[in-house]
Amino acid sequence: MAKNAFYAQSGGVTAVINASACGVIQAAKRTRAIGKVFAGKNGIIGALKEELIDTSKESAKDIAALKYTPSGAFGSCRYKLKSVEDNRAEYERILEVFKAHNIGYFFYNGGGDSQDTANKLAQLSQATGADLTCIGIPKTVDNDLPLTDCCPGFGSVAKYVAISTLEAGLDVASMAESSTKVFVLEVMGRHAGWIAAAGGLAGNGRGQPPHIILFPEIEFDRKAFLRKVKETVNKVGYCVVVASEGARYKDGRFVADAGMKDAFGHTQLGGVAPTLVDMIKDSHGYKCHWSVADYLQRAARHIASATDVEQAYAVGQAAVEFAAAGKNAVMPTIVRGKKSKYTWSIGEAPLSKVANVERMMPRSYISKDGYGITAKARSYLQPLISGEDHPVYKDGMPQYVRLKNLLVKKKLKAFNVD
Amino acid sequence: MAKNAFYAQSGGVTAVINASACGVIQAAKRTRAIGKVFAGKNGIIGALKEELIDTSKESAKDIAALKYTPSGAFGSCRYKLKSVEDNRAEYERILEVFKAHNIGYFFYNGGGDSQDTANKLAQLSQATGADLTCIGIPKTVDNDLPLTDCCPGFGSVAKYVAISTLEAGLDVASMAESSTKVFVLEVMGRHAGWIAAAGGLAGNGRGQPPHIILFPEIEFDRKAFLRKVKETVNKVGYCVVVASEGARYKDGRFVADAGMKDAFGHTQLGGVAPTLVDMIKDSHGYKCHWSVADYLQRAARHIASATDVEQAYAVGQAAVEFAAAGKNAVMPTIVRGKKSKYTWSIGEAPLSKVANVERMMPRSYISKDGYGITAKARSYLQPLISGEDHPVYKDGMPQYVRLKNLLVKKKLKAFNVD
Repeated sequence: MAKNAFYAQSGGVTAVINASACGVIQAAKRTRAIGKVFAGKNGIIGALKEELIDTSKESAKDIAALKYTPSGAFGSCRYKLKSVEDNRAEYERILEVFKAHNIGYFFYNGGGDSQDTANKLAQLSQATGADLTCIGIPKTVDNDLPLTDCCPGFGSVAKYVAISTLEAGLDVASMAESSTKVFVLEVMGRHAGWIAAAGGLAGNGRGQPPHIILFPEIEFDRKAFLRKVKETVNKVGYCVVVASEGARYKDGRFVADAGMKDAFGHTQLGGVAPTLVDMIKDSHGYKCHWSVADYLQRAARHIASATDVEQAYAVGQAAVEFAAAGKNAVMPTIVRGKKSKYTWSIGEAPLSKVANVERMMPRSYISKDGYGITAKARSYLQPLISGEDHPVYKDGMPQYVRLKNLLVKKKLKAFNVD
Repeated sequence: MAKNAFYAQSGGVTAVINASACGVIQAAKRTRAIGKVFAGKNGIIGALKEELIDTSKESAKDIAALKYTPSGAFGSCRYKLKSVEDNRAEYERILEVFKAHNIGYFFYNGGGDSQDTANKLAQLSQATGADLTCIGIPKTVDNDLPLTDCCPGFGSVAKYVAISTLEAGLDVASMAESSTKVFVLEVMGRHAGWIAAAGGLAGNGRGQPPHIILFPEIEFDRKAFLRKVKETVNKVGYCVVVASEGARYKDGRFVADAGMKDAFGHTQLGGVAPTLVDMIKDSHGYKCHWSVADYLQRAARHIASATDVEQAYAVGQAAVEFAAAGKNAVMPTIVRGKKSKYTWSIGEAPLSKVANVERMMPRSYISKDGYGITAKARSYLQPLISGEDHPVYKDGMPQYVRLKNLLVKKKLKAFNVD
């Protein structure tokens, strides 16, 4: 009897992580190597609690609809397993649950931490003789995994940020003569500036927005920033800023941590956009508007990149094919073709080399003055936002699927998850 | 020789105000009654400064592209003309500029204030014997004009808010088990809750987001709000809040005006979303995320409502037809059909009855507890977001048009606009 598979979504969800789930489930159906696919309810917590969703209870139509449904259809979690030394009990519990449900394949869909967990579980299985194949599936809007050209999830957030910057830029340009002169858009990316960089795709000509991008990779200099805002307003008539939530001062303090206090005297982390707007108003007196995209950017399946959707599906599918081919402790990657016309294919990387490595924006992708992207960045980023993949609509709303998410009957005693 | 027309965009721009411009320009081309269409550079300021954009210099293709380009293609302004008594010079200047350029038609595309200005100009023309036809064209994301079933611009922002609420709701639902429990989306609408109400279209079933909508029409009660958040998290596992920027306490203070002070002790208007999140964290300790949509919501042409685009075009076209038929001091309106299947047609309203009247949400559209919308609101709102009208894309980006905006040669002396 073919072994079953366990699939889990991990960390912050994306517009296309369910496309990877769809790839896993549909590919598993086609291979004889794999029995059922169980999905972890709320990620790896589902394995610990023995809360396994039986995906075979869903209709083929609903599984297909995962390809255009954002967020984590089975629930995700922020739960990092400690090292095997520090919490061996958790790893053993997972292996026990897998054994009880005849699970021989573990597919872990997440970022760097998740790849690390998958790798540890692979090592422990080998050491203890458990028959478990562990395959990572890349996912992160932050685009910071190594050894892959890009990360599924990033292309769609990049497209959202580029289009939002373009649209808001046109808006402030219309208003600038007698009203708003500065617009600041705050985007995700606490450590790496990939998402902020995508704002740069909004314009390319002289004077086109965004006029200033703030990257976590570049030290924030208040004076130079305010000077640049003023110069831009004087020259262009208005100024559009795309700011990474991770923008920092030289001493490491986040720009967002501006020492704001509420009525009770509690310090508040204000968000980088309102903090920048306060600076600009104080210094120049311009009327400003600001927006914080937050979850909207990573959930915006309605404007997903078709390239990103295809790649997310493909890594899910490839993970199953790798497993069926007997590979272990690897992660499918996106490999960019060498020609000038963009092509991509699936490659593979060992989990041991992926785990816990963060890929920052290369300095060569950021313009000399630190406020824009280079032609090199543009040619890297542009193909990743290519193509539209509109969801199905009814009565004006996307018809995202809500699965039944029926749990498999438990066979073991309860396990305490803190 | 047929008289020329002057068209101006006024106040905050929308995703579809350029569709109205397209309707005006294309309809004017078809009628013999009207010569050229001049557009005000930055709205009415363009008339005062004699900065008239000659739309006949744009290609037919570029004019057609206005139908899918957000913001104000000719520039808008926040500039309210005073009363004729207080500033007769401005009105006389406008009439002088119109005379110099053989302009016999004035099309003013804006909200309540603009309809008021158009009305005053019509009265003054009649009183002074100037040959000027004044037609208002409705536009406002706030949906607060009277005598029209809805306002062009609203349907698209409503669709954006409904879809964003749906998408962010799925996101927080995936994360809630181990991370974010509350998401707050701040939307526009300082006086009327129409935009916030649109968030209610995201879900309808039991427990579906949004769980709480905050309207400017309903007094904000901190205690009751915090209780409702807690109840929702306990029952559903998470809570999605859509908050109007205009949410207020009983004493009239904005919720956003929470007495935040920056490092220098200056009071800051913090935004309603971060203010609510501070309350929730302080009181319940939940992990929260928040987003401020700001310009993104009204500029989001990429997800415009097809119904809204058609209506925006139709009111522009009707304005020209009204003028050609000899009507004056009127505004085309949207009239909803009486049958249960949604239909609409163009009606008309006298400017004198439109000017300076704000239409609030009826209490019957808000649920008893003040936190949701009723079935009545739902049947009013739903048709307005119907249909998608995707812009043309290239290389992953919408191909919004940037016009040449060539100015007509000035004939008069400069006029000082403060």
